[in-house]
Amino acid sequence: MSVRIGVIGVGMIGQDHIRRITQVLTGGSVTAVNDVDAARAGQVAAGLPGAHIHGTAAALVADDSVDAVLVASWGPAHEEQVVAAIAAGKPVFCEKPLAPSSAACQRIMDAEMAAGRRLVQVGFMRRYDAGYRAMKAALEDGGLGAPLLMHCAHRNPSAPDYGFTTEMIISDSAVHEMDIVRWLFGEEIVAASVLTPRRSGHAPDGLQDPLILVLETAGGALVDDELFLNAGYGYDVRGEVVCETGTVALADVSEVTVRAQNRHSGRVPVDWRDRFIRAYDAELQEWLNAVAAGTSAGPTSWDGFAAAVVTEAALEALRTGQRTAVSMPERPDFYVK
Amino acid sequence: MSVRIGVIGVGMIGQDHIRRITQVLTGGSVTAVNDVDAARAGQVAAGLPGAHIHGTAAALVADDSVDAVLVASWGPAHEEQVVAAIAAGKPVFCEKPLAPSSAACQRIMDAEMAAGRRLVQVGFMRRYDAGYRAMKAALEDGGLGAPLLMHCAHRNPSAPDYGFTTEMIISDSAVHEMDIVRWLFGEEIVAASVLTPRRSGHAPDGLQDPLILVLETAGGALVDDELFLNAGYGYDVRGEVVCETGTVALADVSEVTVRAQNRHSGRVPVDWRDRFIRAYDAELQEWLNAVAAGTSAGPTSWDGFAAAVVTEAALEALRTGQRTAVSMPERPDFYVK
Amino acid sequence: MSVRIGVIGVGMIGQDHIRRITQVLTGGSVTAVNDVDAARAGQVAAGLPGAHIHGTAAALVADDSVDAVLVASWGPAHEEQVVAAIAAGKPVFCEKPLAPSSAACQRIMDAEMAAGRRLVQVGFMRRYDAGYRAMKAALEDGGLGAPLLMHCAHRNPSAPDYGFTTEMIISDSAVHEMDIVRWLFGEEIVAASVLTPRRSGHAPDGLQDPLILVLETAGGALVDDELFLNAGYGYDVRGEVVCETGTVALADVSEVTVRAQNRHSGRVPVDWRDRFIRAYDAELQEWLNAVAAGTSAGPTSWDGFAAAVVTEAALEALRTGQRTAVSMPERPDFYVK
Amino acid sequence: MSVRIGVIGVGMIGQDHIRRITQVLTGGSVTAVNDVDAARAGQVAAGLPGAHIHGTAAALVADDSVDAVLVASWGPAHEEQVVAAIAAGKPVFCEKPLAPSSAACQRIMDAEMAAGRRLVQVGFMRRYDAGYRAMKAALEDGGLGAPLLMHCAHRNPSAPDYGFTTEMIISDSAVHEMDIVRWLFGEEIVAASVLTPRRSGHAPDGLQDPLILVLETAGGALVDDELFLNAGYGYDVRGEVVCETGTVALADVSEVTVRAQNRHSGRVPVDWRDRFIRAYDAELQEWLNAVAAGTSAGPTSWDGFAAAVVTEAALEALRTGQRTAVSMPERPDFYVK
Repeated sequence: MSVRIGVIGVGMIGQDHIRRITQVLTGGSVTAVNDVDAARAGQVAAGLPGAHIHGTAAALVADDSVDAVLVASWGPAHEEQVVAAIAAGKPVFCEKPLAPSSAACQRIMDAEMAAGRRLVQVGFMRRYDAGYRAMKAALEDGGLGAPLLMHCAHRNPSAPDYGFTTEMIISDSAVHEMDIVRWLFGEEIVAASVLTPRRSGHAPDGLQDPLILVLETAGGALVDDELFLNAGYGYDVRGEVVCETGTVALADVSEVTVRAQNRHSGRVPVDWRDRFIRAYDAELQEWLNAVAAGTSAGPTSWDGFAAAVVTEAALEALRTGQRTAVSMPERPDFYVK
Repeated sequence: MSVRIGVIGVGMIGQDHIRRITQVLTGGSVTAVNDVDAARAGQVAAGLPGAHIHGTAAALVADDSVDAVLVASWGPAHEEQVVAAIAAGKPVFCEKPLAPSSAACQRIMDAEMAAGRRLVQVGFMRRYDAGYRAMKAALEDGGLGAPLLMHCAHRNPSAPDYGFTTEMIISDSAVHEMDIVRWLFGEEIVAASVLTPRRSGHAPDGLQDPLILVLETAGGALVDDELFLNAGYGYDVRGEVVCETGTVALADVSEVTVRAQNRHSGRVPVDWRDRFIRAYDAELQEWLNAVAAGTSAGPTSWDGFAAAVVTEAALEALRTGQRTAVSMPERPDFYVK
Repeated sequence: MSVRIGVIGVGMIGQDHIRRITQVLTGGSVTAVNDVDAARAGQVAAGLPGAHIHGTAAALVADDSVDAVLVASWGPAHEEQVVAAIAAGKPVFCEKPLAPSSAACQRIMDAEMAAGRRLVQVGFMRRYDAGYRAMKAALEDGGLGAPLLMHCAHRNPSAPDYGFTTEMIISDSAVHEMDIVRWLFGEEIVAASVLTPRRSGHAPDGLQDPLILVLETAGGALVDDELFLNAGYGYDVRGEVVCETGTVALADVSEVTVRAQNRHSGRVPVDWRDRFIRAYDAELQEWLNAVAAGTSAGPTSWDGFAAAVVTEAALEALRTGQRTAVSMPERPDFYVK
Repeated sequence: MSVRIGVIGVGMIGQDHIRRITQVLTGGSVTAVNDVDAARAGQVAAGLPGAHIHGTAAALVADDSVDAVLVASWGPAHEEQVVAAIAAGKPVFCEKPLAPSSAACQRIMDAEMAAGRRLVQVGFMRRYDAGYRAMKAALEDGGLGAPLLMHCAHRNPSAPDYGFTTEMIISDSAVHEMDIVRWLFGEEIVAASVLTPRRSGHAPDGLQDPLILVLETAGGALVDDELFLNAGYGYDVRGEVVCETGTVALADVSEVTVRAQNRHSGRVPVDWRDRFIRAYDAELQEWLNAVAAGTSAGPTSWDGFAAAVVTEAALEALRTGQRTAVSMPERPDFYVK
């Protein structure tokens, strides 16, 4: 049976998920849409025969033709929408961030725990990337010994042309490494520091680009994460975990090698979509499968919460220039395993 | 609307396509199955709620709940089944080979031309591989100049354990390069030769393994294709097209690089499924899309016929040890563009 | 004319330089040796027909058959020996460190400046490595824009089995990156910090291994340097300079690629000699050439001094856990070229 | 003691060897020169203090200040010069080809056997290349099983601008693979065929470029060698030996990887000198060492003869379009081991 999905927020990301559900994946259909921009909601619905248009997220959640909810609205709206889905007992896929503050994430967790079962999957799609999965498999295989540290780089060709701030390098870009580090190491992050190299001449005024974020895990592992929004040459996400007897690193993945003009060369992805499109596909397919099976899988509300807590510490580290401890509470049993 | 598919032949390949249609792709469902082994048909149908089991391929083709036919039976049965689908005006996806002889392929083309529209897609899945597609894009880009020759290697870890013969290296393995060469160069193959290096000690008795097949295109391009069924170390398909000012080659695609024991290394696929699973997915998705749109796409009956003609010449070259001309008729207008 | 060299210190490094001069390079011969261990001096001299054995470094420096001096004794002896060579007006190649303290290095510079011409070349051989040279050429080419930061890793298979201390990771290992960073960026280092990831279970008791050293240049560039003495898998020196519009990194250099057991792989060097043997050759050949030409080239006393100053700051950073400013005086005009 | 060398032929290659002996290698000096162009001989000698200029090769060979002879004249002159050196009992290094015909090579062997000891080293420098040496080591290690076939490519950016003919692709370019194949497989070549792909539009009139030369060894191994003189993009020598359980291939050797403009890339050598300079150095150093030690090493007259015999068969194969057997006599005991 196909899972009938209501999509809240049909901007770029929301539309991309709709395309994915209707044209790429199996087992899902979009039966309802909602957007703060009613005109946009109408346009998108026009391409979805039979889909309902709802004036409010609450109405969409309540729609009987909606089995599960996909939240792709802007961050500040997430909490109310996710909590509404939880209240209705409907599984919800929420794009990152789960909510803009750890306090809001906490309220979502409270609601979910009160409901008694996990209903939320957060959109940390890197966990579904073949590269990170192979990396995790190599770590779990044990042949490399214990992981000790990790080098990351997260490079975009250029910062988005809306008012992208230095804080957003932490909250929007680095949040991906925060999650993937927690997942790869199986440990919480306990401290964050921010180092500020000299700015690129291509960085817009006021943007401290690049940055280096240093994270420390509960077990003492150390992660340096270069964040470079205006790296110019392409979209390049790199990572190497250094273990006791070897290392494992994301490889350059290029389908072909070209030999021309005294170079042999391969392709660097042009943007995040190019790089991670299969991870987005896998992420949402696994969500559809879990919903259809009545189970839950993937990154939880706790993962969304933990990312928010680390983000807050990293932002303070950016403000103060100091190493900042992360105040992470105990993980509730509800979210263990 | 979902395309309702009847599957003829539910052995390993047929079952894999059923898995693909029901669990991976969008826009298709399996509504009927047929197999020479009725018990196997029943077992497979048991996992497909509502699917009909037909005692004959003809009955499956005639089933009103079948919009399109997927032929995954053994080669000698293809002709009759494909022609039946054509007669019924139903689109048909036929696994390679289209038919075991060029004469049989010719009869399929005759039937299709008589029907007045293209209904057949042949399962040359390499055309859907990201590597070969990037290679073709690089050639069409023009920056490398005209293609002059190509080096191919097609290595399996070990020959199938049923009675795999030297002739099957040509007809079952090399047929993939025959098709991909025609597609990459946009030219027909006009001659074939077979060279026989010394046999591997790991080749079963009587199997001339490895082989080198040399193909010549109408425009004079030359292709050497190493076929090595017992290469031992993995499944490795390689190709480099040498052009006037540069070359383009399939790259080693490994998600991660491991540094251990004085080596840095990446993965070689374990088998053809590992290597080409995405190509199979893309191939069948494009077929579903074309069927839904009432169009046709992908490798045609002509491509299946051409592969059969080249195969026959290559088999003669193997028998005689001589360079053998390929007797390729003119391509009918029906199959141009 | 061949340069007649007196070698002070004929332990492992000294003997290797003698082998290089007599069996690999052109334009030099070894005419005198000295060592604190007279027996060892005698053994080495036995393989050098006509070479004098001197009981003291001073006597070797005074020997008329010695045109130039190569100092490969232990660090604490360097100052006196190098100053003696300067006093005699003889060119001197001094293995790193130039001297164990910045104060001692300052005294060497004072002597050299008093002598009125540059006579000292310090053994920072990485500047002669083809990889670092290509990296510097790529930076100077300008096509990548200004360099902003650098990632380094310096991994040994295992720490030396004499009492290698955490401080020696800074003074003996990281000193190579201190010099190469100054050379690549063309800027002095102004601050150092040390981060301590969790220790490898393979690190000997008391050794904080791995370490991350963070360096900051006068122009604000930032360098993170992973130092891992017990990395286990090989000797691996890595570096990537991140510039405004691209990056340049040391490549894995392996002569051949092996495809076996489901991996394609290349070699990682087994030790520093394997990795840098050509750099040592080039370094000493250029020294011989400069001596023969009556000129000087390569890393100067100032470079040796600067490395000592940065090392002292890094050691304080290690002790205190704090970012430590480097107190670098102005570079004397004498050392500006 | 330094080996005193007389150089016959001081054109480009001869001058490069003189530079090598005087500025790069150890243990040799150039004490005499001869050239058909007396003015050129004079110019070159001007840079070699004390070197004698001889009007004839015979006079140079007879010079008491000449311990060993290096022949870098044009091919047709080699026989007389090499035989003269043999007659004088002086070791001789002869650039390839040893002589332009197998008959001439046979006469050299006859002279050498009559002299009773090996005095000739032929300039097949690829045997000294780190890549081919690593390849041979991998084959001898045994871990890959028996070698079965080899793929080679030999690409130049453009054919020399003197009248380079199709025959010269065989005699001047392919001769390198003929020798390296004999050396890697440890077997003689027993047959040759030539395949002619379509010509590059960048090939000069009358030049069949590229070519594919197919060689067969006594043990049945098969080698395909793409020869492409106008490959445009660089100087690229490639090779992969396919064994029973794995393969070993020359790797792309680039010191650095550049990431820019959506590509990650490494360097391809610009010309043969760039690619093989270290092999030439090693080759001549080993010759100097052998001469100094009173021994012989490296490719022998037999290797030069065998290359000539195979070249003659390959040229006939080019002329006739037929597979041509190589008429190789038994190797004299004199040249075994």
